[in-house]
Amino acid sequence: MPITTCVFDAYGTLFDVAAAARQAAAEPGFEKLQQKWPELANHWRLKQLQYTWLRAITGAHADFWDVTQDGLDWALEASGLDGDAALRQRLLDLYWQLQAYPEVPQMLADLKAGGLQTAILSNGSLPMLDGAVQSAGIGDVLDDVLSVESVGVFKPHSSVYDLVQKRFGGERDDVLFVSSNGWDAAGASGYGFVTAWVNRANEPIDRLPWKPAHVLYDLTTISQLAGL
Amino acid sequence: MPITTCVFDAYGTLFDVAAAARQAAAEPGFEKLQQKWPELANHWRLKQLQYTWLRAITGAHADFWDVTQDGLDWALEASGLDGDAALRQRLLDLYWQLQAYPEVPQMLADLKAGGLQTAILSNGSLPMLDGAVQSAGIGDVLDDVLSVESVGVFKPHSSVYDLVQKRFGGERDDVLFVSSNGWDAAGASGYGFVTAWVNRANEPIDRLPWKPAHVLYDLTTISQLAGL
Repeated sequence: MPITTCVFDAYGTLFDVAAAARQAAAEPGFEKLQQKWPELANHWRLKQLQYTWLRAITGAHADFWDVTQDGLDWALEASGLDGDAALRQRLLDLYWQLQAYPEVPQMLADLKAGGLQTAILSNGSLPMLDGAVQSAGIGDVLDDVLSVESVGVFKPHSSVYDLVQKRFGGERDDVLFVSSNGWDAAGASGYGFVTAWVNRANEPIDRLPWKPAHVLYDLTTISQLAGL
Repeated sequence: MPITTCVFDAYGTLFDVAAAARQAAAEPGFEKLQQKWPELANHWRLKQLQYTWLRAITGAHADFWDVTQDGLDWALEASGLDGDAALRQRLLDLYWQLQAYPEVPQMLADLKAGGLQTAILSNGSLPMLDGAVQSAGIGDVLDDVLSVESVGVFKPHSSVYDLVQKRFGGERDDVLFVSSNGWDAAGASGYGFVTAWVNRANEPIDRLPWKPAHVLYDLTTISQLAGL
């Protein structure tokens, strides 16, 4: 089947989640981040994801914004940076205006020009995602933004991936699902999407029972994978 | 209600999961582990746990021994140690004979002498757990070893914690549940057990919706918490 719909994970895939810590480290007043921002960004992301999985298993769903703050609070304490309310607030503010990776706007424009449907499918809540989409200026080249909030459970639960067919119809293998999170690409493969794992960090492939159909290092070849 | 039953997580709580990598690093032939064993042990544990959570969410259960090997394979590749079949096999062999923390045998003996029921409740399969229990010589001071294999889903799914009452009866708050994994202690608190988090690594507390009743740094005060 030809690909009709290209669906993208948001955080880490279109938007650079490390940008908040990296950018704050370059700002006056936050010099103490200069050495610690990579560790902080890594812990922040790790705990944010762990908390989504643990909440999915226990049925204790919460808005991704709450989970993002929970992960940051753990990470700040682990790096000895807790207690600085201005730093915490600045990092949270920056999370609403994360930089898109440089190839993103043209890649999405090419897909739309080629007649494909495009969407985001994310753990994020719609207000967070709208903030990031507006900040990156990619609203015009996305047909929709789909959030787990409408099903009340986080990825990789199958009811999240169900949202794509509910919105766009078609078959599972009409969909090219793109994620920089290996576990998300794996989960979507298990669900039945054609998947691409964007391995930006050059990490080992996850040893899960499903493998991504494609492994990329950035998003520049997505339109080829979509058949354009 | 008084505590009638003390239930322990196994890996990280009674048994030192870093011991396999640390011990192999001290053996002839594995000198390349001397610098890398802490990173390897950390990645191994991180991926092992991630894979249990992702499998719990997607309903793709597997034996913990398979997941343990999957985590090790990711970790070996991440540390540039893949391709050494002898090293891989040695690490896996050592996982079946992990050292117990030094205070464990006396602590369990005290609980039994005090008339309490004692058990392990673990993600591990029974053969793995039996190997570790025998290696540590603590079989005589445990009433039972309960494995997630009998319910086919990993922690912190509630059906795992259900195994305790199915075996021992009583109420949830008759149980003192002890884990060095913050997320496991949190999940068990949410379930209704009285919990103790053994924070051996002095980590920040997890920002989950449930908190452990007690925070300890080793197991020496467990009999006090159990009312002895």
